[in-house]
Amino acid sequence: MTVVAKEENLTKVRIAISTSSFGEIDAAPLEMLEAASVEVAANPYGRRLTESEAIDHLKDVDGLLAGVEPLTRRVLESAPTLRAIARVGIGIANVDLEAAREQGIKVSNTPEGPSTAVAEMTVTALLALCRNLVPANAALHAGRWQKSIGMGLEGLKVLFIGYGRIGRQVHDLLKGFGAIALVYDPYLDSATLKQGETQVSLAEGLPQADVVTIHAAGNQTILRPDEFAQIQNGALLLNSARGELVDEAALIAALESGKIKGAWLDVFREEPYSGKLLEYDQVLLTPHAGTYTRQCRLSIETAAVRNVLRDLEISTES
Amino acid sequence: MTVVAKEENLTKVRIAISTSSFGEIDAAPLEMLEAASVEVAANPYGRRLTESEAIDHLKDVDGLLAGVEPLTRRVLESAPTLRAIARVGIGIANVDLEAAREQGIKVSNTPEGPSTAVAEMTVTALLALCRNLVPANAALHAGRWQKSIGMGLEGLKVLFIGYGRIGRQVHDLLKGFGAIALVYDPYLDSATLKQGETQVSLAEGLPQADVVTIHAAGNQTILRPDEFAQIQNGALLLNSARGELVDEAALIAALESGKIKGAWLDVFREEPYSGKLLEYDQVLLTPHAGTYTRQCRLSIETAAVRNVLRDLEISTES
Repeated sequence: MTVVAKEENLTKVRIAISTSSFGEIDAAPLEMLEAASVEVAANPYGRRLTESEAIDHLKDVDGLLAGVEPLTRRVLESAPTLRAIARVGIGIANVDLEAAREQGIKVSNTPEGPSTAVAEMTVTALLALCRNLVPANAALHAGRWQKSIGMGLEGLKVLFIGYGRIGRQVHDLLKGFGAIALVYDPYLDSATLKQGETQVSLAEGLPQADVVTIHAAGNQTILRPDEFAQIQNGALLLNSARGELVDEAALIAALESGKIKGAWLDVFREEPYSGKLLEYDQVLLTPHAGTYTRQCRLSIETAAVRNVLRDLEISTES
Repeated sequence: MTVVAKEENLTKVRIAISTSSFGEIDAAPLEMLEAASVEVAANPYGRRLTESEAIDHLKDVDGLLAGVEPLTRRVLESAPTLRAIARVGIGIANVDLEAAREQGIKVSNTPEGPSTAVAEMTVTALLALCRNLVPANAALHAGRWQKSIGMGLEGLKVLFIGYGRIGRQVHDLLKGFGAIALVYDPYLDSATLKQGETQVSLAEGLPQADVVTIHAAGNQTILRPDEFAQIQNGALLLNSARGELVDEAALIAALESGKIKGAWLDVFREEPYSGKLLEYDQVLLTPHAGTYTRQCRLSIETAAVRNVLRDLEISTES
């Protein structure tokens, strides 16, 4: 940032950033802010802010490019100049929307950004599980040449639990591989289904699916012991949505019995995760990294900058 | 196999099988042989036959469903009743074609079968490398929650070295992800290229490719120190074709310098492989498993049975 004289400073719009890695992948979002002549205050801690750190960080700012720090009523009431919060991401559960509305703070998010990256990561994990990639690689690095027969995706029945933006994109990517989509989504308008997408109830889908992939919203557990009992023996389970949607004890029982042959989990009830699933080699585990691609971070950060500038009514040239 | 009386036995066509796992995935190919009333002799060793074992195994047989055992002149001349060799796979380098021709033995292979499985495995490895799947999974299983930024496939430039059946199929699968294809193939008829496929020389392609993937035939080394010098820093290398196509010492130097950030190798100059690449964690290694899917094995075995029955002029009902 260039140093600005105090007189000029008073007239400048100030935007705080609270995500820890904003602009690291690509400087373009920071350059957009610079081009708009706003003053920027980066996150000084390099991690998620606490409530009191957020209060300090939001002093005298007009806008916020927000992470998942607690933007409680207490924080928002301590920031009388704040007029716009732009979440760099989808979830806004960390924002007290009621308090924001009362203070006239506009709140936005970036619903479009992450779906491609999460969908790609889901397909990555599915292919890796089907082709025994992780165990084959580990064995060969240890000097063991262990061939095993995997599964191609052709003809594989994939049950989508939740069929919004990400679920549909996963199916789009899988089409070229010849997988078959079964769709369970209570909020689904069946008129929006395309060829090759068959709507099913959970009770119809679970016994015939080779793969169950979760792309649902909400926090209510969907796969409980009863649902695991209905799943086809030897099925794969993928969860990139929310840890709460799967009963972990029931999943562990299903892994122990072989009912679930392999799984991929990117989300957990508590993160960072350090629970019992670490012990199961047949479970691929990733650290909530579904959105962690260069393209996705850049797209989310760019969209959030556009949102905050729009909500602060700052014109941009781009 | 049912026991047959000696009288009947003499009139039956005999087919030997030399691949070690024939019919294990799915009994359908064995059932086709049974339906054709041929007598079958399975591989009694459960591994690749030696030359003298092959001589024993081919005694008095009419046809062979062949693996990669040495079908040398010596073997073929010891099998005067042999009339048809059907390779269960593509490569026929293990068959002395000259000797086969002289003895009137028909030789077939299954060129169609493996391309889907190899193409899928290539995409699997590419996605896994791009999303840091293996290190992220290993870290989390060891209790370390390590987020790192990966690469989505959108806009990624993929240089295909060799653009036959498998290369084209890899590109078909990658299209949905938004990757960009650069194609180097000296035998390519450019009129067969479709939209989104750009023909390049190796010198043009190597410096701009984010990913180099090899799908060429032959045994002549394509990537030597000179070619590695031209590759873009931080590129990925994929080889599912033949180990001989890459100079291993040059690859190791490129891994050491970071020129090649990650690689996947499914094929090696000597297999089983036990060389220096085992020491590089950034190299995904799989044991020549490109064709190892249920669908692919079934399709190859079925095609080979059809070929051997056709060449022995045995009619089938299917």
